[in-house]
Amino acid sequence: MTTDSKLDLVLERVVDVSPELVWTAWTQPEHIKKWFTPAPWTTVDCEIDLRPGGTFRTVMRSPEGEEHPNVGCYLELVPKRKLVWTDALEAGFRPSRQPAHLGFRFTAAILLEPHGSGTKYTAIAMHSNEECRNKHEAMGFHDGWGTVLEQLVAHMKSVGR
Amino acid sequence: MTTDSKLDLVLERVVDVSPELVWTAWTQPEHIKKWFTPAPWTTVDCEIDLRPGGTFRTVMRSPEGEEHPNVGCYLELVPKRKLVWTDALEAGFRPSRQPAHLGFRFTAAILLEPHGSGTKYTAIAMHSNEECRNKHEAMGFHDGWGTVLEQLVAHMKSVGR
Repeated sequence: MTTDSKLDLVLERVVDVSPELVWTAWTQPEHIKKWFTPAPWTTVDCEIDLRPGGTFRTVMRSPEGEEHPNVGCYLELVPKRKLVWTDALEAGFRPSRQPAHLGFRFTAAILLEPHGSGTKYTAIAMHSNEECRNKHEAMGFHDGWGTVLEQLVAHMKSVGR
Repeated sequence: MTTDSKLDLVLERVVDVSPELVWTAWTQPEHIKKWFTPAPWTTVDCEIDLRPGGTFRTVMRSPEGEEHPNVGCYLELVPKRKLVWTDALEAGFRPSRQPAHLGFRFTAAILLEPHGSGTKYTAIAMHSNEECRNKHEAMGFHDGWGTVLEQLVAHMKSVGR
């Protein structure tokens, strides 16, 4: 997958859980709810229809109890290797009904490669233009996506071994 | 494929060219240029990267010589049966850089089924909301998509037999 540093944000890490477990963490609602939002935010609902054109919906709750729904659509799925979705579309590839919840649309790709007994993990966020990319970076993309990856690893270690 | 009459526009026709020829007409730039825009408009350029995430780009020219580029992204491809793309995304599933050229985004599906020696042809345009659907209808969706289908059939008969 080619990226464009002016338009994309990339987080690359090696983690010590297998691609199988990372894939499970990303594709089952009961796991998503455990790690998907940086504490003290929580993910209180999740719907996954794991096929191109299927829904990926989450509801995040702020520490103050405010709920933020977020609806997206899966685009490309290669089990244990690649997961791509966008919030520019919703179920059935329909253009999104909701306003962009971050103020802009993005497409995300999670790439997984075996690395010893662990995983080389690459998360990519693709944007329309530099302004959106820079806004997403300033919102704390790297810290946020890094933190939730640590939460994912801790959670899957607790259930997966 | 399920449609929602409040959000979608549907054109259904039986045509007397085979699904193979309709598929060819939709997937090769040299054919697209011959039928894709209602005369006296013309399609002066076309780029097709026929895979999910690949570009579908056309440039239409008005009778006055004004050019209108239109960039989209393929989402789902079943050879000779189903072609889905959207202008909400561009190459690599990136959210569109260009403003929506119709004033709104839409996702389109072309469904082909064998019907005798011809084809049952269904074109679906999916929208975010009723306002966009109704605007697209008022812009002449049924006449426009019907006219270009007639052009497609005439063109493919001229080259395909």
